Amino acid sequence: MKLFLVLIFVATSAFALDELVKVQEFKLDSFTTVRGKSIKQVRMGYETYGTLNEEKSNAILIAHYFTGNGHAAGKYTDADKALGYWDAIIGPGKALDTNKYFIVTSTMFGSLTPTDPNTITTGPASMNPATKKPYGMSFPEVTVRDSVNLQKALVDSFGIKKLFAVAGASGGAAQAVDWSAAHPEMVGKVIAVIGPGLSLPAYTVALLDVWSAPIMLDPKWNKGNYYNKKAPIEGLTESLKVLTHSSLSFDWATDVGRDKIQATLTERAKARAAVIDANSLIYMARAVQTFDVEKEAGSIKADVLFVPASSDLIFPPELSVKAAKKLCDGGKKAGVYVIQGKGGHLDGIAKISDAAPVMTDFLNGKMKSCKF
Amino acid sequence: MKLFLVLIFVATSAFALDELVKVQEFKLDSFTTVRGKSIKQVRMGYETYGTLNEEKSNAILIAHYFTGNGHAAGKYTDADKALGYWDAIIGPGKALDTNKYFIVTSTMFGSLTPTDPNTITTGPASMNPATKKPYGMSFPEVTVRDSVNLQKALVDSFGIKKLFAVAGASGGAAQAVDWSAAHPEMVGKVIAVIGPGLSLPAYTVALLDVWSAPIMLDPKWNKGNYYNKKAPIEGLTESLKVLTHSSLSFDWATDVGRDKIQATLTERAKARAAVIDANSLIYMARAVQTFDVEKEAGSIKADVLFVPASSDLIFPPELSVKAAKKLCDGGKKAGVYVIQGKGGHLDGIAKISDAAPVMTDFLNGKMKSCKF
Repeated sequence: MKLFLVLIFVATSAFALDELVKVQEFKLDSFTTVRGKSIKQVRMGYETYGTLNEEKSNAILIAHYFTGNGHAAGKYTDADKALGYWDAIIGPGKALDTNKYFIVTSTMFGSLTPTDPNTITTGPASMNPATKKPYGMSFPEVTVRDSVNLQKALVDSFGIKKLFAVAGASGGAAQAVDWSAAHPEMVGKVIAVIGPGLSLPAYTVALLDVWSAPIMLDPKWNKGNYYNKKAPIEGLTESLKVLTHSSLSFDWATDVGRDKIQATLTERAKARAAVIDANSLIYMARAVQTFDVEKEAGSIKADVLFVPASSDLIFPPELSVKAAKKLCDGGKKAGVYVIQGKGGHLDGIAKISDAAPVMTDFLNGKMKSCKF
Repeated sequence: MKLFLVLIFVATSAFALDELVKVQEFKLDSFTTVRGKSIKQVRMGYETYGTLNEEKSNAILIAHYFTGNGHAAGKYTDADKALGYWDAIIGPGKALDTNKYFIVTSTMFGSLTPTDPNTITTGPASMNPATKKPYGMSFPEVTVRDSVNLQKALVDSFGIKKLFAVAGASGGAAQAVDWSAAHPEMVGKVIAVIGPGLSLPAYTVALLDVWSAPIMLDPKWNKGNYYNKKAPIEGLTESLKVLTHSSLSFDWATDVGRDKIQATLTERAKARAAVIDANSLIYMARAVQTFDVEKEAGSIKADVLFVPASSDLIFPPELSVKAAKKLCDGGKKAGVYVIQGKGGHLDGIAKISDAAPVMTDFLNGKMKSCKF
C-alpha cells in the first residue's frame, strides 16, 4: 500500500511544474495606444514556466481570457488550493511541455482583478501618475491590439525574434489570432481556444454591452468615480451573473435545475464581485469588442488550430469553422478540433485536456489541416 | 390595366379579414390565482375573427407572446399601418381559416402595454380597487396557469366545451401547451410556435432574470412605486435591449454589422420603452418562469405540433424535438416543423407563413406525427 501511494505521487509529480511559480513585473515608462494615447508607467504581470533555449526558438506566449490574469499553471505557494487555469495542459510531459517549451504568460491592459496581488495590470483602477488619483473612466480606451503590442515589448525584452506559438482561450484566443495578424513574422503557430474566429461577431459585440450595462445603471458607479467610496457591487454582481449565464449552456443549467439556477448564478456572481473592479469590466468589454482581423487575414503566416467547445453560446463552433475555412481559402493552414461537452464556453478551461493530443500533434507539425 | 389592378385587389382582399377588428372586454368580479390570492375586478381584452358554428366546435384560441397583446390579425382602423402579429396565417383561406374557424385571442395577466388603449389587462399597473392606487409590486404573483384559467373563463362564457385548437408563439406556446395539460378534455390540438417545449428550461429561467434585472437597478424603479413619478426608463430601455438581443441571432446581427448593432438595438429598445410598463415586464418574466407541465404530460390528450425556428437562441429547436419525443414516447401524437431562417426567435412571427402548409395539414388531421 505504501509503495502504491509513492508510485502515485511520483506519477503525479512528473506532470506538475517542478517549482512554485511567481508573478514577475514588466514595466514601460511610456506606451502609445493604437488610437494615439500615451499611457505612462505601464506595468504588466507575467509568469514563465520552462526554460528559454539558446536559439530563443522555443517560446510559447499565452494570453488570458476576459475575467482572468496571467496565472495559467502551477501554484504560488504549497498551500494554494487552485492551480493556474490551464494547468491541465501546461507542465512536463503535457501538451504545452515545459521540458520542451518556454511558456510566457501575460496580463492584459485593464485586467479585472487589479486588487489581487498576483494581478499586475494597468487600467482604470491604476493610479494616474499625472493626478495621483485612480484613472477611472479617464483611462484611455485600449484595444486587443494594445495588449498584443504590450506583450510584444515583453517578448522583445527576452530577445525572442519569433514565438514558436501563441495560445489563449476566449479573449486570449482573440489576442493570439491578433498577434498573428499584427506581427506575422513573429508567430509560428496559433492555438485559438473557444475564440471568436477572425473577428468578434456583431452579436457578441452587443452581448458585451449587455454584460457591462448593469454596472452603469447602479448609482454607486457614479460615472466610474467610486474608488474612494462604495463600489457599485449591486450592478457589478448583476453584470457577473449575466456574464456567467452567457458562459454556460442549456444542458448545464438543466443539470443545476429550475429551482436552483438563480441562486447558483447569484452565488457565483457575488463571489466574483468581491474581487473584480467594475470599471475594468467595462474597459475589458470595450477592448474585446475591437477585435477584427478579417481584412488583415491575408497577412497571417502562422498555422492556426481552432479549438471551440460544442455547447459554447458565446462563440459557437461555427465561428471557428468559418475562420478556418477563410484561412484555408487564402492558402493558409488551419484546423478545427471541437471539445465535446455541456459546460458551454467554460469547457475551453474545464475540458481543455480533451484537446491535449490534438494540440501536441499541432505543435509537432502533424495536424491534418483544411479538412472539414 | 384597370382590370389587372382590380384582380389584384380581389385576390388580396380574399385573404384579408373582411372587417375591422375591435378589442372586446371580458370581466370577472373576482379571480383566485393558483397560489390562492384573490384579484378583484379582473379585465381581459380579447378579439375574435370568424364565426362560432352552432355546435361550438370550431373555436381556436390564440395566446400571445411576452411583449404582445391579443391583437393577432387585422386592423383596428383603415389607417393602421401594422396588422396583427400573425395576420399572415389568420384570415379567409389562410392556415387559421376564418371561413372555417372561430378565432379567439386573449390577453395575459400583466400584459406589457397597459397604457395602450387596445391592451386590456389586469396587472401591476392596474388600479387596486381596495386602495384606489396602482398595485405596483403588491399585485399578486401570477403564473402561466393563471392566464390559462382566465382564458378558460372566457371560453366558458361562449359556451364552448372543447377548443378545436389552442395556438401561440413563445410565451403563447407555453400557454397553449399549458392549456392541454390543465384542461385536457377541452383541447383538441395544440400549435406551439417558438416555444420551450413542456417546461421552461433552467437556462431560460435565468435569462428571464437577466431581462428584468436592469429595471430593478434603476433607482427610478423605486421598488415598483413610480406610477405618479418618473418611470425607470433607463433601466427599462436596457431590459428591452437585452430582450431584443436575446430574440435575434448571430446571422441577423452580422447582417446589421459590428458598427451598427449597438445603435440598432438601442433604437429598438427606446421605441419599445415608451409603451411598455416596467413592473409588468418583471411580472411577465416571473409568470413565464413558472411554466412546467413535465409531470402532467401524461394527461395531455391533444395532438401537438411544435414549430421552432432554426436560429432561435431563446428556445432552440432541440427543446421542441425533446418535448415531441416525450409526448410520442407516452403514446401521444406530436410533430415538429422547423422554420428555417436567420431571424432568431422572431422568425416565429416574421416567417410564420413558412409553417402555414404544415399547420393546415395538422388542423386537417393529416400530420405525420412521431417521425423524427
